[in-house]
Amino acid sequence: METMIGNDKPILTRTELLEGWQGHRRLTRRVIEAFPEKEFFEFSIGGMRPFADMVKELLAIAKPGLKELVSGEKQEFDEHRDYGNKKIELLNHWDADTEKINALWEELSADRFSETVVLFGNYEFPVLWHIFYFIDNEIHHRGQAYVYLRALGIEPPLFYER
Amino acid sequence: METMIGNDKPILTRTELLEGWQGHRRLTRRVIEAFPEKEFFEFSIGGMRPFADMVKELLAIAKPGLKELVSGEKQEFDEHRDYGNKKIELLNHWDADTEKINALWEELSADRFSETVVLFGNYEFPVLWHIFYFIDNEIHHRGQAYVYLRALGIEPPLFYER
Repeated sequence: METMIGNDKPILTRTELLEGWQGHRRLTRRVIEAFPEKEFFEFSIGGMRPFADMVKELLAIAKPGLKELVSGEKQEFDEHRDYGNKKIELLNHWDADTEKINALWEELSADRFSETVVLFGNYEFPVLWHIFYFIDNEIHHRGQAYVYLRALGIEPPLFYER
Repeated sequence: METMIGNDKPILTRTELLEGWQGHRRLTRRVIEAFPEKEFFEFSIGGMRPFADMVKELLAIAKPGLKELVSGEKQEFDEHRDYGNKKIELLNHWDADTEKINALWEELSADRFSETVVLFGNYEFPVLWHIFYFIDNEIHHRGQAYVYLRALGIEPPLFYER
């Protein structure tokens, strides 16, 4: 039965995974754009962080995390990095990281995805599951931003448009 | 360069994908459990649906969607199906679907994941991306439920515990 259904045959390429990730990053970018300037940095519900602070977490994970996975050089996890206090400054950093992620990806061989590594001095998983965590964590916080936007009376971008 | 980094070598097995999906479903189950009975069915923010209605959407997608992917038999997408009006009834359905998903998965061969198919008479993607959509959509709505719980003064389950 295992053989019949090809149980261990892999089903996702690294190229597809990058495209899926960048598709999510494009949607998150549109969600950032949808926020009014002030509310992006200040609006919150139930004592949670404003979306700007969640975006700083996403920026602290994606490019630095991938850089450590690729190079093995320890990166500091700093979700309070100062990107300036304007939405456009975070968006510019977001776009710069999009290019850096694409470039770093070219250095991450398919063989590395099954390798178990410690990231940010703390989290030990196979490389593949670190990257899934980056993506899932982004979807999670972006979903929270959808509630913020709805509470502000703003229609969020369509979830399925990437 | 393409060859050096093993560009097209796949990096995820179907067994791993199922485990990742069921890990997310276990977390979503804990989020359902964290809601008080009444608020699960009634609490909302910004005109959004109560979490119970989002869970009905997730139930309408996961098992029926996988059944259609596996069997090719058209399934109705019905996110208003009546599961009763108690949280435990939805949880019992959730648990029954967990077992059915595991069983259906055994019939989905690795070769099928790259096959492009129409699902619910509307959405045309490779099987793999249908399943990623099921997972991503669940993370998205569960993230929204975290805001509902925080607004209710309830500590949500840890995101990284699966």
